[in-house]
Amino acid sequence: MSSLDLFFNPRSVILIGAAHTEIKFGGIVLRNLLRFGGKVFPVNPKYPELMGLKAYPTVSEIPEQADLAIIMRPAPEVPGILRELKGKVRGLIIISSGFAEIGETALQDEVRGIVKEMGVRMLGPNCMGVYNPHRRFDTFFLPPSRLKRPKRGNAALISQSGALISCLFNALRTSHAGASGAVGYGNAVDINESDLFDHFADDAKTDVVVSYVESVGDGRRFIERAKALSEKKPLLILKAGKGASGQTAASSHTGRLAGRYEVFHSILKRFGIREAVDFEELIDATKALSCQRPSRGSRILIITNGGGLGVLAADECMKQGLEVTNLPGEKRERLKKTFPGFYGINNPVDLTAQVQDRDYLTVLDELKDDFDGFLIIALPNIPGISLELAGLIKGFRETAGKPVVINLSDSSITPKLTALFEKARIPVYLSPERAVRGLRTLLS
Amino acid sequence: MSSLDLFFNPRSVILIGAAHTEIKFGGIVLRNLLRFGGKVFPVNPKYPELMGLKAYPTVSEIPEQADLAIIMRPAPEVPGILRELKGKVRGLIIISSGFAEIGETALQDEVRGIVKEMGVRMLGPNCMGVYNPHRRFDTFFLPPSRLKRPKRGNAALISQSGALISCLFNALRTSHAGASGAVGYGNAVDINESDLFDHFADDAKTDVVVSYVESVGDGRRFIERAKALSEKKPLLILKAGKGASGQTAASSHTGRLAGRYEVFHSILKRFGIREAVDFEELIDATKALSCQRPSRGSRILIITNGGGLGVLAADECMKQGLEVTNLPGEKRERLKKTFPGFYGINNPVDLTAQVQDRDYLTVLDELKDDFDGFLIIALPNIPGISLELAGLIKGFRETAGKPVVINLSDSSITPKLTALFEKARIPVYLSPERAVRGLRTLLS
Repeated sequence: MSSLDLFFNPRSVILIGAAHTEIKFGGIVLRNLLRFGGKVFPVNPKYPELMGLKAYPTVSEIPEQADLAIIMRPAPEVPGILRELKGKVRGLIIISSGFAEIGETALQDEVRGIVKEMGVRMLGPNCMGVYNPHRRFDTFFLPPSRLKRPKRGNAALISQSGALISCLFNALRTSHAGASGAVGYGNAVDINESDLFDHFADDAKTDVVVSYVESVGDGRRFIERAKALSEKKPLLILKAGKGASGQTAASSHTGRLAGRYEVFHSILKRFGIREAVDFEELIDATKALSCQRPSRGSRILIITNGGGLGVLAADECMKQGLEVTNLPGEKRERLKKTFPGFYGINNPVDLTAQVQDRDYLTVLDELKDDFDGFLIIALPNIPGISLELAGLIKGFRETAGKPVVINLSDSSITPKLTALFEKARIPVYLSPERAVRGLRTLLS
Repeated sequence: MSSLDLFFNPRSVILIGAAHTEIKFGGIVLRNLLRFGGKVFPVNPKYPELMGLKAYPTVSEIPEQADLAIIMRPAPEVPGILRELKGKVRGLIIISSGFAEIGETALQDEVRGIVKEMGVRMLGPNCMGVYNPHRRFDTFFLPPSRLKRPKRGNAALISQSGALISCLFNALRTSHAGASGAVGYGNAVDINESDLFDHFADDAKTDVVVSYVESVGDGRRFIERAKALSEKKPLLILKAGKGASGQTAASSHTGRLAGRYEVFHSILKRFGIREAVDFEELIDATKALSCQRPSRGSRILIITNGGGLGVLAADECMKQGLEVTNLPGEKRERLKKTFPGFYGINNPVDLTAQVQDRDYLTVLDELKDDFDGFLIIALPNIPGISLELAGLIKGFRETAGKPVVINLSDSSITPKLTALFEKARIPVYLSPERAVRGLRTLLS
C-alpha cells in the first residue's frame, strides 16, 4: 500500500470550516463527505449540528482520532488550527488559499514547519484535495450540481491547478471515460507530483496518469519518478508557465517558480515521456490513452468520405511524423475492382459522399496488416452512414488489436454515433487534425 | 450586380438527375429546391411527376429557357447532357464526380470545351454547388434532417471541398452565427476561388469571407483578388495539401496540383491575409470574425477564476505575439483595495474560486483603457458565477468597442451561458488557448 493511501481511503475525516449551506464552500465539501462511507467530524463553533451530523465547536472536543483533517478556514487561522490538530490526525489537506501564491511566504513557511513537527503528510495549501470515485471520497469544493464527477475508470488526474482538474473531469465524462482518482495539490508544500507519480504507478486501477504541472520543486526527483512511472504505464504531462508571461502567472498562482521550459521539454523527450502542447491536446490524448493501449509503428491508413478532411488529416500526419504510406499495389487493384470508379483508392481512401457503412470495413479488412494505425473520417450527413458504422469498426478494432481513432463531423446522428464509438473504446474527435494527434499518442 | 449573381439568385432551375426519393442525392436536391421561390424543372425519364412537380423525360422537352441547370447524372453522360442544354440555360452547376479527381482528365477537358462553346459560366464538376439562405436556394445533396443549415448571417463560405463546407455549416450554427452564402466549387474548371472572392467582395450582406483551398490554378490572379477582397473585409484562408502526403491527397480529390505551400504562406503573410493553421482554427477564427470587427493592438488583459487556465492563456499569448502587459501601478493598488487579499491582482487577474459575477466587470471597467483586447476565463462550476455574467460582459463590450472573447469550461450552466454570450456576439471557446487564438484573429 502506498504511503499516501490514507489520502484516498481514509476511514474518518475532520472537516474544519464545515458550513450549513452549499452556498459556502465548507457546505459543499461537507455535503460531498456525506456520500463517503467513513466517519465525518464537522467543526464549526456556530452550529451544534450540520447536515444531520453532530458538529464540534473546536478540534479538541472531538472525542477520537481521525485519519485526515481537511482545513477550509482563512489562511491566517491555519497555524493555530494545525497546533490544535497535533496528535489528532495522520494526514492533512489544507484547501485554504492565501499563502505563497499571494506573497505570504512567511505564513507558508510557518505551516510547513508545524506540519513537519507533527510528523504527518500534507496536501496543499491552496488546493482542491482528493477525489476517489471508488470510495466516493470527494473534497472538491465544486457543487456536483454544477460540475458532475466522472465515473470510475482508469485515468488518474494529478494537477497543481484545481481548475484544470475540473476541466479534465468534464472531458472524461463527455468522452465516456472514467477516473481512477484525482488530486489537486496546489502549492505542494509537502506532497508533490513526484509522490503522486509513485502512488499511481502502484495503483492497479490506474492505466494512464495525466499530470498538469506549473512548477517543479526538486527537478531531479521529478524526472526520476516520472521516468519510473512511465515505464509502467503511460504518463502524460502538460507543462504550463512556458514563457515569461506564463511564468509570472504561474508564480502568482501557486507560489513556485516555473523554471526554463526548454530544459524541461528536452528532458521529457529524452526519457520518452509524453507531453501535451496545450489544454486541448491534454484532453485529446487523455481520451486516447484511457481507451486504448499504445503500440508501435508510424504507417497510417486514412479512410474518409469527405476528400477535404482526408487532405487535412494527411497534412497533419506529416507534421506529426506519421507516414501516410501507399497502398500495396495488388490490394489497391482489388479494392478498385470492388468499388465504383469514382471512389479514390489511394491513401487517404476517399469513399466519397456515395459511401455505405460497410465500405469502411471492406477497406480495413483488406489493409489491416499493412498499417500500424487507422484513422476513420466519417461525415454522417449523408444517407449512406448510419449508427451501424460503430459496430462494424468496433469489430475490426477488437480483431486487429491496433490503434483506431475516429473523426466525426457534426450531424443529427453524431451524438449517438459518438456514444457508440466511445463506449466501444474508440475515441472520437471533432477535427481531422485532432484525430491524427490522438492517434499519434497511441503510437509511441 | 456580380456576374455570378445568377448562381445565387436564379429565377428558374433545371435539375437533371432529379429523383423521387430522398434516399437518392437527386431526391435530396429536388426536395431542397422546392423551398426556393423560383421555377424548378426536374428531368427524369422514368417519372411523369416528382414530388408534386411535372417531370421531363429529357431537357429538350422543357418548354422554356432557365437561368441554371444542375447536373447530377454519372460523369460519362455529362457531355451529352451539356450538348442538349445548349441555348437553354445561362449557367451550370455540375455536381457529378468522376472527372480529373480520378484521372479522367480527357472527360474533364471535353466538358470544359463544350461549356466554353456554350458561352456560359459553370460551377464544378465534382462539387456541392450553392447555398443562399436569403433565397433558400440550396443545391447541397446533404439531407437537412442530417445536416441543418445555418441561419442568415454575415459569413460567406467558399470551398473546394464540400465536406469542409458542411463542417463550417455546423460550426456557424452551433456558435449562433449565420451565413450570407456558401459555395462548394469542386474541380474549378471554370468558376474558381478568385471569381468567388470578387463576388463576395461586392456582396453587402457579407462581412467576412472564409475560404478552404487545396490548389490554385492561376496563382497571380488568386493573390490579386484575395488582396482586393481583404482590403474590403476580412478574408480567412485554410490551405490544405501542405506536405507531400496532403498534396497527393489533394490531387486525387479535385484533380488540381497543390503547389509549394511555403510560397503560398509567405505571400499571404506579405499581403496581410489571414491564414488558419488547421480546421479547428478555421472554425474558431470564423466565429470570432463573424461576431466582432477586427481592431489594432496587442496588449491583452486576461481575467480568470481558475489560475491554471490563466497560466495556459498567458503562455499562448506569448506564442501568438500578444503581450500580457502589467497592470498600471495605481489601478492595481485600487483593485487590491477593492478585492479580498487572496485575489491575484496581476495579469492574468486571478479572481479565484471565490469570484462573484460583478468582479469581472469591476476589473474591466478599471482597466478598459489600458488594453487592446480582453480574454475572460470563467469556470462556471462554482456558485459565484451565474447567467448574469453574460449581460455584464455584453454591456462592457458595447461601450468598450474592443475585442472581447470568452473561455468557458464545461458545467451545468455552460450551454445556456454560451448561448447568451454568443447571441451578444461574444465568441465562446472551450480551451484557453483557442480563446487566445480567436482574440488574435480580431487584433490584426
